[in-house]
Amino acid sequence: MFSVEFISQHRVYDGILYFIRHDSAATQSSMSASIFVPDVAEVRTDAPFPTLYWLSGLTCTANNFTEKAGAYRKASELGLIIVAPDTSPRGGTIADDEAHDLGQGAGFYIDATQVPWKPNFQMETYITQDLIAGIEANFPADPKRRGISGHSMGGHGALTLAMNHPHLYKSVSAFAPIASPSRAPWGQKAFAAYLGNDHAAWERHDAAILMAKGMATPFDDILVDQGLSDPFLEKQLMPDLLEQAAATAGQKLTMRYHEGYDHSYYFIQSFIDDHIAFHGERLR
Amino acid sequence: MFSVEFISQHRVYDGILYFIRHDSAATQSSMSASIFVPDVAEVRTDAPFPTLYWLSGLTCTANNFTEKAGAYRKASELGLIIVAPDTSPRGGTIADDEAHDLGQGAGFYIDATQVPWKPNFQMETYITQDLIAGIEANFPADPKRRGISGHSMGGHGALTLAMNHPHLYKSVSAFAPIASPSRAPWGQKAFAAYLGNDHAAWERHDAAILMAKGMATPFDDILVDQGLSDPFLEKQLMPDLLEQAAATAGQKLTMRYHEGYDHSYYFIQSFIDDHIAFHGERLR
Repeated sequence: MFSVEFISQHRVYDGILYFIRHDSAATQSSMSASIFVPDVAEVRTDAPFPTLYWLSGLTCTANNFTEKAGAYRKASELGLIIVAPDTSPRGGTIADDEAHDLGQGAGFYIDATQVPWKPNFQMETYITQDLIAGIEANFPADPKRRGISGHSMGGHGALTLAMNHPHLYKSVSAFAPIASPSRAPWGQKAFAAYLGNDHAAWERHDAAILMAKGMATPFDDILVDQGLSDPFLEKQLMPDLLEQAAATAGQKLTMRYHEGYDHSYYFIQSFIDDHIAFHGERLR
Repeated sequence: MFSVEFISQHRVYDGILYFIRHDSAATQSSMSASIFVPDVAEVRTDAPFPTLYWLSGLTCTANNFTEKAGAYRKASELGLIIVAPDTSPRGGTIADDEAHDLGQGAGFYIDATQVPWKPNFQMETYITQDLIAGIEANFPADPKRRGISGHSMGGHGALTLAMNHPHLYKSVSAFAPIASPSRAPWGQKAFAAYLGNDHAAWERHDAAILMAKGMATPFDDILVDQGLSDPFLEKQLMPDLLEQAAATAGQKLTMRYHEGYDHSYYFIQSFIDDHIAFHGERLR
């Protein structure tokens, strides 16, 4: 689980973007990920370097973020490594569903307890254990300076993994997260399939509920950006529940609403620099 | 030909990206394009604004550049409109070829004289007449301040259209252009299909040959970026022929080679800011 296979690489913005595969014990399969390593991390002697983990949304693979987010200019400037894993295990022998919001491409960053998902859909353990182990064994990534961010389903993943594993991550932010999946159709469908009727488990993977219980307090601030023309705003994302929970918990939350912006990577590329800077400052 | 149909729009980097369709007399079909209009062009009173036309490469549509180039941050900063048209007419009644380098997605920015391409594949006339007319009738784009750039097949298009229509464009640049298509397999295949054996016509669409004849001299400088790990460098792109031609013609050419960079949009996104600034300065 510590070795990685290098699939391809691209030079980009004074750094190198690697596409890798590596075997995961958690998902019992070979997982895809991308890793951007800025030149400064290769040539400077003060390695290891801070690392931002990016969790993508429904239907994404390890390379939507790499092509569309425009994140690497700022990451090079600040000397930040960025890791973007796939959103689920994949392949012919892995369970799947024809829908875009369940199965391959829709792992929801949780450990499934139900058939047919349980053997491979162990995304919480994959992201928090196997991915970190594989990255830190092969790249100059600092185990003491990890941040996590993501978009939509990945925003949910970033918030909940950070809250459930605060010892792993020093900074957390999100774009248009599914703020309370146990109250949103996407989350309800996925949680029912992956977790069954265990509603205590549902709550453990619901950012707004976790935050209301004060489990986010290890973070000095959480940055969330949300477009006001996002078609999923009211029914699926519900950022107001996150705001209410933060107020209840006394957790500082910098929630920024943006007139006119939607749910696409056009929205992400418009504000990614601010998130890179937010993590860069906290991981310095 | 002056009316456009608005298909969709996205807010991005303090501006709006519109996807449109409009009827072209040249291609006798409905053409797709994207237009980024920065807010400054909407609110400032000193309209109209400088406009950069971006021509994409083989297989691209009107939205590869929009998602992958990361161009709009700098365009917003400088108040530049960016127009990215499709690479050919498209649809069920339009002639096509199964290959990726001929037919739909591969118009090569020339006017075809041969069947079955002649009725619709009139991309030179489309880009230089119908596209400009449609854009300038519907957006605050300044007819006196147009620049043109592009990638690969679109780099060839930018160079040759600028040289053949210097009254239309005040600035020109390219990423990894097919510098001498009449000497490259991609160009030879396309020119034979679209232009037949008329080798005078081939020369009119070959940037290195045009430049060697001194036809590029209206431009104070031409910026070209080329990755040294580009797999098409030697057989298809041949930037050395452009450099020789520029020396012969006394045309200033800023040819920048970049160690490690390939032919992808990772290369483009790494240097797009420099091109936006190059055009911004000349179109100010």
